Amino acid sequence: MLFKIPSIERLIHELSRLPGIGEKSAQRLAYFILKNKEDFPEKLSLALQSLRTNVSVCKTCYNYTEITDICEVCDSSSRSRKQICVVEEAFDIAKIEAYGKFRGLYHVLGGSLSPLHGVGPDNLKIKELLKRLEASKTDGNPVEEVILALDADLEGDTTALFIAKQLEGQGIRVSRLAYGIPFGSDIDYIDNRTLGKAFENRVELECHL
Amino acid sequence: MLFKIPSIERLIHELSRLPGIGEKSAQRLAYFILKNKEDFPEKLSLALQSLRTNVSVCKTCYNYTEITDICEVCDSSSRSRKQICVVEEAFDIAKIEAYGKFRGLYHVLGGSLSPLHGVGPDNLKIKELLKRLEASKTDGNPVEEVILALDADLEGDTTALFIAKQLEGQGIRVSRLAYGIPFGSDIDYIDNRTLGKAFENRVELECHL
Repeated sequence: MLFKIPSIERLIHELSRLPGIGEKSAQRLAYFILKNKEDFPEKLSLALQSLRTNVSVCKTCYNYTEITDICEVCDSSSRSRKQICVVEEAFDIAKIEAYGKFRGLYHVLGGSLSPLHGVGPDNLKIKELLKRLEASKTDGNPVEEVILALDADLEGDTTALFIAKQLEGQGIRVSRLAYGIPFGSDIDYIDNRTLGKAFENRVELECHL
Repeated sequence: MLFKIPSIERLIHELSRLPGIGEKSAQRLAYFILKNKEDFPEKLSLALQSLRTNVSVCKTCYNYTEITDICEVCDSSSRSRKQICVVEEAFDIAKIEAYGKFRGLYHVLGGSLSPLHGVGPDNLKIKELLKRLEASKTDGNPVEEVILALDADLEGDTTALFIAKQLEGQGIRVSRLAYGIPFGSDIDYIDNRTLGKAFENRVELECHL
């Protein structure tokens, strides 16, 4: 571009740092924002400011929380203290909450073990999880099950195995989400590993033999 | 979602107003911004603020301009005043400037004629274009050609025809960008209308008969 408008270029630069937004999309977004200059930039700025000042990390589970030190889930009396669902990112909690059936607590690891990317156990909130489980025993309200809701990839598997190993002999059930065929999918399109797992974990239907 | 964090929800709501960003993408973006809470929200806010306060619309061509009343293109002495390239949106100028060969001025209509969507000639900067052309005659530097670089759809075509009609008998050449096969494309994948136009507008190659 021969003639560039610095403020527009700056916004495009910032927007193109967002995941999945390339230079081209960032341009489109910037010009959309310009077209709605009277109202949108201010609203978005205020939303960003509110995020910065009001949102922090829960001291117990490392989920995000607004204003308070303890997130709403940890603080709620309606949630069971017997189950902790371990997730990689706080984002995953939103997904599980949307599903709406899990009534226990959460623990956010902040990623998954990945020696290739230099992420070891000390970079994740694994120690904090172990401490939390230990503390629950002395509280008289011991955690009975740790559900590992980690991504179904090599890093997720490694992390799940590592945590399971750490919890050996502690009398805590450790489970992970089932692998299988996604609901509504065609067998045709399923990859071999998923199909293999679905066969391994097949469920018997009740019928008279 | 059972437990929602208001500041995050607010940001998701604002982000999902952006074109091409659905609820799901907005969530991803919001959590990315949260992960980079220390630095990104402030930078993006500042960029938005700079956009709001510094960017306005050029009084001559309706392109965006920073701080000044007249945009850099209109203000530049190195641009020819004999050609005006008419575009629908200021965004299109960035594209044409990136191509870099056009050395004339621009005129932003602010859309295209679309009776179905209630966009008539008075909603576009068509009158302003005619005035500008008129003024150029008395300035002693008359515009010789108006190049219509409008979208290749029904609305673009309608707008082009309307403007061409307005300029009849004024001694100004009116052209529009050529229709044809996009560079690097397969004939296989070209739609019939484009192929038809490419046949109509075929160019003779120089060779000895």
